[in-house]
Formats: sequence, structure tokens, C-alpha cells
Amino acid sequence: MSIKFAHRMQHTQPSDIREILLKTSEGGYISFAGGIPDPELFPVELLNELAQKILRDHSARALQYGPTPGLLPLREKIAALMSDIGVAADSDHIQITSGAQQGISLSGTIFVNPGDIIVTERPTYSAAINSLDLFRPRYEDVESDEEGPDIEQVRDCVRAEQPVKLAYVIPNFQNPSGRLWSPKRRVAFMDAMAGSETLIIEDDPYGQLAFRDQPPQPLKAIDQDERVIYLGSFSKVLCPGLRVGWIVAPPKILAKYNLAKQFNDLHTSSFDQELINAYLEDAALQPQIDRLRETYAARCTAMLTALDETFPADVHFTRPEGGLFIWIELPKRINSRDLLELAMQEKVAFIPGDGFFATRPMVNTLRLNFSAMGPEKIKEGIAILGRIVHKLLDQSTEKTNHFV
Amino acid sequence: MSIKFAHRMQHTQPSDIREILLKTSEGGYISFAGGIPDPELFPVELLNELAQKILRDHSARALQYGPTPGLLPLREKIAALMSDIGVAADSDHIQITSGAQQGISLSGTIFVNPGDIIVTERPTYSAAINSLDLFRPRYEDVESDEEGPDIEQVRDCVRAEQPVKLAYVIPNFQNPSGRLWSPKRRVAFMDAMAGSETLIIEDDPYGQLAFRDQPPQPLKAIDQDERVIYLGSFSKVLCPGLRVGWIVAPPKILAKYNLAKQFNDLHTSSFDQELINAYLEDAALQPQIDRLRETYAARCTAMLTALDETFPADVHFTRPEGGLFIWIELPKRINSRDLLELAMQEKVAFIPGDGFFATRPMVNTLRLNFSAMGPEKIKEGIAILGRIVHKLLDQSTEKTNHFV
Repeated sequence: MSIKFAHRMQHTQPSDIREILLKTSEGGYISFAGGIPDPELFPVELLNELAQKILRDHSARALQYGPTPGLLPLREKIAALMSDIGVAADSDHIQITSGAQQGISLSGTIFVNPGDIIVTERPTYSAAINSLDLFRPRYEDVESDEEGPDIEQVRDCVRAEQPVKLAYVIPNFQNPSGRLWSPKRRVAFMDAMAGSETLIIEDDPYGQLAFRDQPPQPLKAIDQDERVIYLGSFSKVLCPGLRVGWIVAPPKILAKYNLAKQFNDLHTSSFDQELINAYLEDAALQPQIDRLRETYAARCTAMLTALDETFPADVHFTRPEGGLFIWIELPKRINSRDLLELAMQEKVAFIPGDGFFATRPMVNTLRLNFSAMGPEKIKEGIAILGRIVHKLLDQSTEKTNHFV
Repeated sequence: MSIKFAHRMQHTQPSDIREILLKTSEGGYISFAGGIPDPELFPVELLNELAQKILRDHSARALQYGPTPGLLPLREKIAALMSDIGVAADSDHIQITSGAQQGISLSGTIFVNPGDIIVTERPTYSAAINSLDLFRPRYEDVESDEEGPDIEQVRDCVRAEQPVKLAYVIPNFQNPSGRLWSPKRRVAFMDAMAGSETLIIEDDPYGQLAFRDQPPQPLKAIDQDERVIYLGSFSKVLCPGLRVGWIVAPPKILAKYNLAKQFNDLHTSSFDQELINAYLEDAALQPQIDRLRETYAARCTAMLTALDETFPADVHFTRPEGGLFIWIELPKRINSRDLLELAMQEKVAFIPGDGFFATRPMVNTLRLNFSAMGPEKIKEGIAILGRIVHKLLDQSTEKTNHFV
């Protein structure tokens, strides 16, 4: 019998990232591919203690069905975390999700009709595009520089005849670029939105991972007309295997998220929520974040130094002040997939950049993760990449000369 | 600013069950409302031991991102469980989900276009309807009796001009009716499907909870043309708080589930999967299931006895041989929501039946759960309900007389 899938599945493709991760999980790779935290830094012993305590003291709650919005004490603690970064929220503004990824997917569910316009940055998080694709939107993506999105382009989108339904943005140490929007650009972005009916989905898994400065305040902190829906996650500051994130939104919007969550999977794992709740109760998060900031800052520096030393001068890359990623633009004549093919032969992996564009992919780009391994490995892997990039550039120059 | 939600959200309603559960969680209720296992029966100590072992021996795997299809050793063990009930499957046929509820939601995602026809039983699982509603299907629901769905009605649906996209069924100790399809009706159902392009979503959270006989084989065991997609869950046989279920489907279909799962939440909690994997490795599931079967059988008997003793003779109810639920049809002149209102005043809760119909709700029906408390409480709660039902019947008779 022939299987007829829904129209929304027609153009779906597996994420590059997860495919490459699967391959590199065979071992022996220097992988700059994942957006993964270093498991060596997971607070395993404390989590083990807390898990025992939970199962000893309130196992019934930890193993039973729970409320769809999420565990109340956890939502209260998340509200306090939000207040630390300038967002006034109480537990009624918070919906627990199974990672911030589910926050994106639920946003598609409750807001996006086929043909609706979604504004994204260039580049943007690939799995957000994949997830939103299911709702068959049209994308308008705006160029971005070191300070954030091009405000003129944002204005053009907002002023166009068809209203923009959603703007999906990652202002803090963006995936894939590592960029941090400047305070000025944030204000300009919110100004550009004023008077429109556009909602902003602010995805913020990396804000706490500021290397030197205080964590940046999210857009949500300067949101005066309840336009911003904030997505948070414990994946990058604690561990991703527990799959706990959250949504902050005004109650009338949160009620719809709650419904969509209920219809999707009833609620997020009770045990995982208890574990994170106990971890927060233990005041363990801030020291853990500080440890991560320090470690990742050193790794980022190691990678930038290695890039400076081994990559050709006409390769451009970002210089992040936080997060997990560096974004590279090769000369236009190089396709990063050719680089990947050669690199994988030498057991070095990364993610080609073309998947990080909602429209008009730039095939000369790539994303490097620096959080998953120590400086020595980083140096070794970047040296290999640098060598291959030189070779590709030389070859392409030869080819060009050949045709002159 | 005005918020425009997606069309698919227009007719969504919160689940009665979760609303009533929220209310009864305040305590002091005899609640027949939830489909919840008795937390007293959770194997807490063993889970605690296993959690410690996991975090000691392979914390990196338990706390890190994992593959979208799910933990391989867990999928292998689930394949073995499937083989025990007559379904030949290997790990490549299995996608781990966050509970069987997510299996329903993902089925909507990958198969259902607006206007597609879905066949359901009358009654059927209310949260399946809620979840599938998001994809804006048309429902055709077929009457069911003690042996399963009316095959003539099924045939009429399948033969109609517009092909049936999905049939969503729960052949084993159905939620809400507790009914078990007879072997003969199963064969007839599959025969009625033969030659069609209809896929069958077989939801089977309760099959293992057969009180006396061996667990029934699922439809999937007699599926000759890869038409059946099987949804399994550990929620009812182990504990629901961990949110782990699975889908069994042919690889070409499973690939789409995998994509939809990836876009939805990347993967199910690594830690929860490890915990269940360790539990299965310990060969602990079968003794646990046997314990549940025995306990729930006694509770079901207690409830049936109490119903026989205290309910009026013209109230009909099912006599389940497994699962968690008894289904009640009151005389047509009684609305079970009136009963609920009075019962809640006396701190007894249940779920009105009208939400369990995809079309044409029967308001004189209700669902009773018997798994969540011991026989004494059951007896006490049913006596209260019986008294109120008698009263409602008397009142309605008086009213009728009054108008004569």
C-alpha cells in the first residue's frame, strides 16, 4: 500500500547536525559539530545525591503524572532566575517545556498558519527553521552584523503589506554566530516593532554563558507591550539530557501554550523537573555557570588563537564574548561541504553553514563549537581544518588561473 | 496589541481530565477521575538504586544529548517486549517518544491534512481527540460493543468516496470503556481495512494489565500489510512521571516520525530512558506487572461489586478484564455533569463521558478509574455516587410525572 504523508512533511529534511553527530559518536573524531556541553563538567555527584533524596522523600510526586504547566516550585525558581536578568515574571507566566526546542515547536503550533510570515536573522538556528517549516510559513530573513540585525531590513518587513506574524531571534551569543546584539540595536529592534502585531520569539539558551561581563538582559526585559515570548533552557547551563526548558509569556498567551503542550505530551518528565528543582534549591546553578563561563572562555580563546594562526587571512570569523559557537565565512568560491568531506576523512567534524539560513543559504559558511573539548584538541583540530582550507583555496586559485 | 492565534487553536479546549485532576489534587477527594497508577505501587527503591548506578557508571550518556530515535539498548529491549506479544520488530522499527500521547501527536503531524478522515471508536480516548483536533481532521466514529467496533460501520467508512486516512483504536482494555476486542472482531476489523490505504494507529498502554489471562496480542501481531502503527508506553506498567513511550512502525514510516520528533523536542529525556533501560535489564518489569495485575483486578472487582450493590438496575456498566477503567451509561435523562457537580460537593470525582466522543457526545456517560486507591475507598466512593444517581433518577421521574 502507498503511504500518503501530510503535506507539511513534504520538504522536511533531517538535521545535518544530528546526522553528523551520529557519525562522530563512533569515536575518534575531533568534533566541533555539536552544540554540546562538555560532559566532564556535569555536576554528576550532586545530581546523584539529589536524585536519591527525591526518590526517598517524595517519590510519588517524582514518578506520577504532573500538571501540564510544570512543577510549581520549579516555576517559582525560574521566575526568580528571570527576575535576575531584568524580567518581572511570576510562576503564572511560565510553562515548562521539554527543552527550548519544544518551545519553538509549540510557538509554531499556536501561532503559525500556512503562508504566515516569520522574520529570522541571517544566519539563524537551523533546528528552529526545521521545526517551524512544519507550519509552512514564508520567511523573511534579515542580514545581521556584529551588533545584531539590520534594522532597516527589519522595518521593511514590518511595514510590508502582509503583517509579520513572528520574529524568531537569538540576541544573546547566537547559535550559530556567537553574536551578541548591542544594547542600541536591541532598542532599535523593539522600536521597529512598535505598533505592529508581530510577536517576538526570543530564544535564549546562551545568555548566562557570558565569558567576562554580566549576563546580558534579554529583549523581554525591555518589552513594553507584551510582545516578547521568552524561551529558556537548562540544556546549556546544566545538562541537556534532562530536557527541561521554559516559556515566559503573558497568561493569555501562556494558556494556549499550555493547551498545545498538553495535546503534545501531557507534561515534561516529573522526575527531571524534580531534579532540576532540587538543584536550584541547592543554590548550585550559579557556581556551575561560573565554572562553565571560565572553561568555555578559555576554549574560545584557544580556538580564536588557532584560527588566527592557521587560517588564511581572507577567512572571516566572529569573536564571541559568550556562548558555544564561532561562525566562519570562507571566501565565496569555497563550499564548506567540500571542506567537511575532506575534514571528516581526517576525523575532524563541524556543521556546514548552509542549513542556518531560512532563505538563500550561504554555502561558504560553517559553524564551529568550542565547548565540547579542551584547548589542546581544539588547537589540533583547527590546525587540520586550516591546512585543508589553504589547500582548497590554492586549488580554486589554480582552477581560476587555468581558465584565465 | 491583539494576538492572532493559528486557526488550529480556535476550537481547542483544555482536557476535562486535567482540570478535574488539578482540583482533586487539593486533597480529601475520593477520585475516580485520573487514569493514574497507584504511586504506592511504584518500585521506588529499585529505581533509586538504578539511578545511582547510572549516574555512577555512565553519567555522560545519561545527562547528554542523545539520538532522536532513542537509546539503542532501550529500543532493543522494547523490541524483545514486542516479540513477547507476537510482534516481530527490531530496534530499527522503534522510535522512543515522551509517552504514548506524543505518539498520537506525532501521528497527526506526519499524516493528517485538514479535512482528512480519522475513524475512532465510540467512545474513545479524549486526549487523542484533543491532540488530533489540532490537525483539523473530520471524524467518523463507529459504535462499539463488548467485542469491539461495529464492523459494518467500519466497512461503510472505508468504502466511502473519501478514503479514511487513519483509524485510531485502543483494542486492549480501552480507555475509557475497559473493553477488550474479541479475536474474531480483530480479524474482521483487519479484513475490513484490506485493500484500503487506511493506516491504523493502535494505542496500547493497557494490554499488559490483563487481570487473569495472558496479555492480548495487539492488532499489530496480525497485520499483514504494514498498516498498523503501534503505540506503547511505560506509564501504566511502571510509572508515568518518566514520560517514556514508543512507536513501532515500518522503517519508511518511522523515518518521518523520527523527523517530526526531532523538530518537536530533539529527543526524549536521556536520563529517563537510561532509568527504564536499567529497569528492564534488571528483569524487574514482569514481576511489577504481575503485582499490578493482581492489585488492579481486586480493585476492579471491588468497584463492580459496589456498583452492583448501590447503583440502580437501569444503569449499565462494562465489566473489564484488565486495564484501569469502567464505563457507565446512565439512563438517557441523566446528564453525568449534573452527577459530577453533586459528587464533587461530596468530594467524589470522576470524568464525565461526553469528552470521549469525536462526534455526537453521549452526555449520560462517565468514566470511573479503579486503579488509584484501595477497595475500601472504592466502596465508599461508589456508595456516594450510587446514592446521588438514585436521587437524580428520582428527581427526573418526579419531573416527568409533574408534566404528565
